[in-house]
Amino acid sequence: MFKLFSLSGGISAADGFFADGVAAGLKNGSKYDIAFIYSETLCDVFSCFTNNKFDAAPIKYTKRLIAATKTDIFQSNFILINSKNANALTGKGGLEDVEMLMQTLKEQYPQIKNPTMSSTGVIGVRLPIAKIVASFELFDLYAKEGHKAAQAIMTTDSFCKEIAFEVECKSGTFKIGAMCKGAGMIHPSLATMLCFIATDAAIPAGEGNELLRKALNETFNAISVDGDMSTNDTVLLLSNKKSNVYDKEAFSFALKEVMHKLAIDIAKDGEGANKLVAFEVKNALNKDEAKKAARALSSSLLVKTAIFGEDPNWGRIASTIGASGIECSEESLSIYFNEICVYHKGNILFDEECEKKAAQIMKKKELCITCDLGIGTESFRAYGCDLGYNYVKINADYRS
Amino acid sequence: MFKLFSLSGGISAADGFFADGVAAGLKNGSKYDIAFIYSETLCDVFSCFTNNKFDAAPIKYTKRLIAATKTDIFQSNFILINSKNANALTGKGGLEDVEMLMQTLKEQYPQIKNPTMSSTGVIGVRLPIAKIVASFELFDLYAKEGHKAAQAIMTTDSFCKEIAFEVECKSGTFKIGAMCKGAGMIHPSLATMLCFIATDAAIPAGEGNELLRKALNETFNAISVDGDMSTNDTVLLLSNKKSNVYDKEAFSFALKEVMHKLAIDIAKDGEGANKLVAFEVKNALNKDEAKKAARALSSSLLVKTAIFGEDPNWGRIASTIGASGIECSEESLSIYFNEICVYHKGNILFDEECEKKAAQIMKKKELCITCDLGIGTESFRAYGCDLGYNYVKINADYRS
Repeated sequence: MFKLFSLSGGISAADGFFADGVAAGLKNGSKYDIAFIYSETLCDVFSCFTNNKFDAAPIKYTKRLIAATKTDIFQSNFILINSKNANALTGKGGLEDVEMLMQTLKEQYPQIKNPTMSSTGVIGVRLPIAKIVASFELFDLYAKEGHKAAQAIMTTDSFCKEIAFEVECKSGTFKIGAMCKGAGMIHPSLATMLCFIATDAAIPAGEGNELLRKALNETFNAISVDGDMSTNDTVLLLSNKKSNVYDKEAFSFALKEVMHKLAIDIAKDGEGANKLVAFEVKNALNKDEAKKAARALSSSLLVKTAIFGEDPNWGRIASTIGASGIECSEESLSIYFNEICVYHKGNILFDEECEKKAAQIMKKKELCITCDLGIGTESFRAYGCDLGYNYVKINADYRS
Repeated sequence: MFKLFSLSGGISAADGFFADGVAAGLKNGSKYDIAFIYSETLCDVFSCFTNNKFDAAPIKYTKRLIAATKTDIFQSNFILINSKNANALTGKGGLEDVEMLMQTLKEQYPQIKNPTMSSTGVIGVRLPIAKIVASFELFDLYAKEGHKAAQAIMTTDSFCKEIAFEVECKSGTFKIGAMCKGAGMIHPSLATMLCFIATDAAIPAGEGNELLRKALNETFNAISVDGDMSTNDTVLLLSNKKSNVYDKEAFSFALKEVMHKLAIDIAKDGEGANKLVAFEVKNALNKDEAKKAARALSSSLLVKTAIFGEDPNWGRIASTIGASGIECSEESLSIYFNEICVYHKGNILFDEECEKKAAQIMKKKELCITCDLGIGTESFRAYGCDLGYNYVKINADYRS
């Protein structure tokens, strides 16, 4: 048995962790654009990165830290994060910039050990090194300003994404806090997803990466943020073991809760999005097929624009399922908008009254579209959003 | 040696073929919405259909005609086409509607042999049978009104798509004419592509389907209109052999010319699109990888919205290549907007002057974005368009 209690403080909520956001002038005006996470003691750092072939310089640097340990983790007590510039496709120079920044940090703050960084923003532009270095002197390493850090990593995000829990379990109490950024969750979008999680739970070094991958598959990967992604996607889980408490069941539950909440926040904050839609594919032949179909729905332009138009266009839903390459048949398929069934095992129930009810559901801010394939037992739920004028506006203007 | 001469007349240009469009009241007002193609003599009909699991009733019907011949073709002298209603996901009743319409046609016009039909429009609504049957008496089987037929099959198309050639070759002269519809060419779009080709060339029964598939791969499939598609996609090639002429080289060249022109028309007419963009991926490891990367570019939302914003955002181009799952490396990649190189084998050339030139190219109505992977010898060119406010408007409003 275990209990979760909500905490404020986000990424700096867990004991021994500190964080802050400062304004280095990368964003216009006095907005925060540089964040850091600092731990008094060295942490084990578990990680997942993008599969994009052109992984950004900070990812290359972090992978080198991992490679040096000859394990699948590394140890660090400091993560630097900048927004506005991805430091991707910047070649050898981009990597040297990271090396220089890390060296400068260590020289300026001797308590910083084996730091690394993450970046998000425009691709193919060298980092404004001087501005970033100048910001270092603004750092108060013992600040508990998780909220400012969460603001500093935002790009096209329309709201700040953070969460923290205290967890009571048989062996004691631990804390877990997190922040993330990501808004262009539209697969095959390339908008970066960065997620940082800091816990004082004493995760065994050999278990963290597996727990992280498992939680990732059921949370961020359900919102079309997955391997087929940006140059910069990164999830880091820092464990300073300060609580001396570890309960695998409780920790993996809490980790999933944290990542689920952040993933839903990203789906809600789809660039220019108005609606959060859960696409549930039920009774598929197997899990992979359920996932494939659910993600085909959440990424279909025609489905997304119909949702924007508040049109219960079940034909586009059906056609997307048919085109997704999975096993299915007209005679066993059923389609629901929330609880309203519009198509049931080959029979079109979409008369005037049914359409009226479905149209009411489409007006909601959050809704669920269910496709029951009726041929197996496996299910998957993907999250997506509508695609409207604002998506176009944001993405046509991004660099300016 | 052979020569191509442009002809007017579209689908009814070839000898012995007739076509017309009539207004049956499926579209609002007096717009053409029913088309037919008629041949004095029986034709061999070669065909390609969607891979969508929920293929529409007219496709199921046509596949049954093919199955009955125990070959991969069928013979017919009449094709009926309606727009505004896809007759897809309409179950047993939808198929019975097709059977009834074909039966009625044969009874009303005894010269019609083994007819079939194609449909395009909204999914999941039964055909307005009475209106369609009533339109049959408007048919003038000997009309040479290919242009009206091409208008009748349009849905969200903003212009009519047709072409015809007379071909002179060693063994004589033949004609080939065609029409198609398709506008939502955005992969993974589900907007239907219908294409009809009528020729008096004497194509051997065993060769037509192979020629058709080959031309399809190099034309329509290059504009993201492929297997992963709508419930109704259909390409039919009718050969009445009236010219008694066949020259394989000349015919396959002419067929490809016809289909290339129509495919480009579809790309140009991407729903709400302003620009036609060729995405050329060069020097890939193999053809499949070149195609995969080119199509990843032509279907990326972020690339498409950047094109709409006339932003030479080469970072999104590079990132899309990196995410496409193909073999590539930063150090060997080069990116061009038309002739302007913005990134060359790991070096960013995108200074102020370069950006100014690239931005000028982005203002053009037609442009080419080239990614030279620099690791092999194979190339593929995909065609795409921008994604702007009008795409959203058209697709949010489609059913109304």
